[in-house]
Amino acid sequence: MSDEFKIFPVGVIRKTDTAVRIDIAEKYAEALLGLEGFSHIVVLYWFHKNDTPKDRKILKVHPRANPKNPLTGVFATHSPKRPNLIAISICEITSIEGNIIYIDRIDALDGTPVIDIKCYIPSTRPNTNIRVPDWIS
Amino acid sequence: MSDEFKIFPVGVIRKTDTAVRIDIAEKYAEALLGLEGFSHIVVLYWFHKNDTPKDRKILKVHPRANPKNPLTGVFATHSPKRPNLIAISICEITSIEGNIIYIDRIDALDGTPVIDIKCYIPSTRPNTNIRVPDWIS
Repeated sequence: MSDEFKIFPVGVIRKTDTAVRIDIAEKYAEALLGLEGFSHIVVLYWFHKNDTPKDRKILKVHPRANPKNPLTGVFATHSPKRPNLIAISICEITSIEGNIIYIDRIDALDGTPVIDIKCYIPSTRPNTNIRVPDWIS
Repeated sequence: MSDEFKIFPVGVIRKTDTAVRIDIAEKYAEALLGLEGFSHIVVLYWFHKNDTPKDRKILKVHPRANPKNPLTGVFATHSPKRPNLIAISICEITSIEGNIIYIDRIDALDGTPVIDIKCYIPSTRPNTNIRVPDWIS
């Protein structure tokens, strides 16, 4: 198996006082064709502030940076410190103008690199028999 | 902004006649601490068979490889051909044994590189006002 894969940013998150938007790079603009048929998207982005060898070696954290939460492996969390710095958010599309997607909100910094967009399809998985630990609330 | 990020595989999907499992590399095994508190995981993996410059330039597809579906930008699909070859599946954990996560099923080939695991937390987003185009069914 390859021991390394390459990710190229396809856009950037921009936050202003009045709007939250995803600016898709011109070279990827065609990949938005048909997105207007969806109300929601899955946004994958890169925790670029943590892209250091040291932070990428962190394997255990106190979830939500709360020391009262038990020390937990990063694969059992959504921690922004993890070996591969991929974040996932589901966002509502407000409008699409050319290569810019306006969204309702996203818990990411202005300037965050976007690495993929996928259409959001509601899960057919029943929300039953799903178990989470006590620190999730 | 950096024009490239590096992803390191953290494990591999293994399928046998009797089981589907994710073998996490020993060096990342500690990142599984506490995962047993969850019934489901979000598995991020890499469409490694499509990791060619040609396939990564594909920006439009007929969804589900069905020519009857309208030509659609890959960001409006879950196509395995896309600029960054990240796939997402939600899987039920059957058991965890050391650094091996047994799961119910995953729509991925044996030998597929796994690039991240996140705990699955049921969405609090109401499944209302979600709109998808006709080709989703």
